[in-house]
Amino acid sequence: MSPVYCALVHHPVVDRQGEEVTTSVTNLDVHDIARSARTYGLWGYFVVTPIEAQHPVVRRIVDHWCSGPGMHRFPERGEAIALVEVCPAIDDAIAAITARDGRAPRLVVTSAKSGQGRSSYADEARRLRMDTQPTLLLFGTGHGLSKQVLERADVFLEPIQGPTDFNHLSVRAAVAITLDRLLAPQRRANNPI
Amino acid sequence: MSPVYCALVHHPVVDRQGEEVTTSVTNLDVHDIARSARTYGLWGYFVVTPIEAQHPVVRRIVDHWCSGPGMHRFPERGEAIALVEVCPAIDDAIAAITARDGRAPRLVVTSAKSGQGRSSYADEARRLRMDTQPTLLLFGTGHGLSKQVLERADVFLEPIQGPTDFNHLSVRAAVAITLDRLLAPQRRANNPI
Repeated sequence: MSPVYCALVHHPVVDRQGEEVTTSVTNLDVHDIARSARTYGLWGYFVVTPIEAQHPVVRRIVDHWCSGPGMHRFPERGEAIALVEVCPAIDDAIAAITARDGRAPRLVVTSAKSGQGRSSYADEARRLRMDTQPTLLLFGTGHGLSKQVLERADVFLEPIQGPTDFNHLSVRAAVAITLDRLLAPQRRANNPI
Repeated sequence: MSPVYCALVHHPVVDRQGEEVTTSVTNLDVHDIARSARTYGLWGYFVVTPIEAQHPVVRRIVDHWCSGPGMHRFPERGEAIALVEVCPAIDDAIAAITARDGRAPRLVVTSAKSGQGRSSYADEARRLRMDTQPTLLLFGTGHGLSKQVLERADVFLEPIQGPTDFNHLSVRAAVAITLDRLLAPQRRANNPI
């Protein structure tokens, strides 16, 4: 089984015009994605932002729930938030994983847009089970990861598609669905691949 | 195919001690769940709260995105938010569906706790495809739907379980995963049931 990590990327991402921008960290992204990451057994969750002023904000959330007043009120919240690490760039997340696991991670990206060379969730789920190399799942805020990130990816997952043509899930929902498709055990039992 | 609706229930739900409480509506629950509902083709999304003072808050969110300034900036947001209807009680949601579709909906509930008589997602997905009776998926805020709601249910879905024993997903993540498991077309293609 691959040690799986995720990163929520606030830069470089694009806005609705396709321009490269930096988005702000939001409290609920930290919480929701940490809880999903903990549920699906991830080894870490990187909040990636070059805005240094936001790093102490994230660390304060982590401290509140992992060692501050929140720990006593909702201990299970701290268990999830303990996975959170803030770093300035995707390469810092890669370096942290490499230092921890002794190998650089495969980079897996997601996008709401379809295109050539996309991998199915079933294929990626199989790779995660068979491989021991770590994996870093990258999720973009705003209108998605910018081209320079997508081009570095080892795997480009197909977009999450419902029975409609509407493809504007929140990033919190997209992370939850992606982790469930890749890592839920009952899914694997129902769908031997 | 069953016309599928969802409801986010703020009362009656329980707190961590199992006491019946009423939780507050939050802006992001309205947005995230509306976007997931629209992605998976739901016919409506009921925000259920007996706190009448919060009804205009929800209606203001709806107006902002469906006919106010938000409509021009993010038209696709309005498309999702247009599914939102606020009502005081679950029975009002049932009445609205019955008036619209001519039949009362089946009630499908979810809980993070396992127990007797749970339905698999595969079985419920099959019912949704085969049946024409409307379906109302009920999601609880706080620590989940209270017993009086669970006892009324026609179907009790099994808990969403990752590969760990941690079962504290956010309700926004739980709704996204549930809709994906029940309604994603590629899931059905991968997993013929």
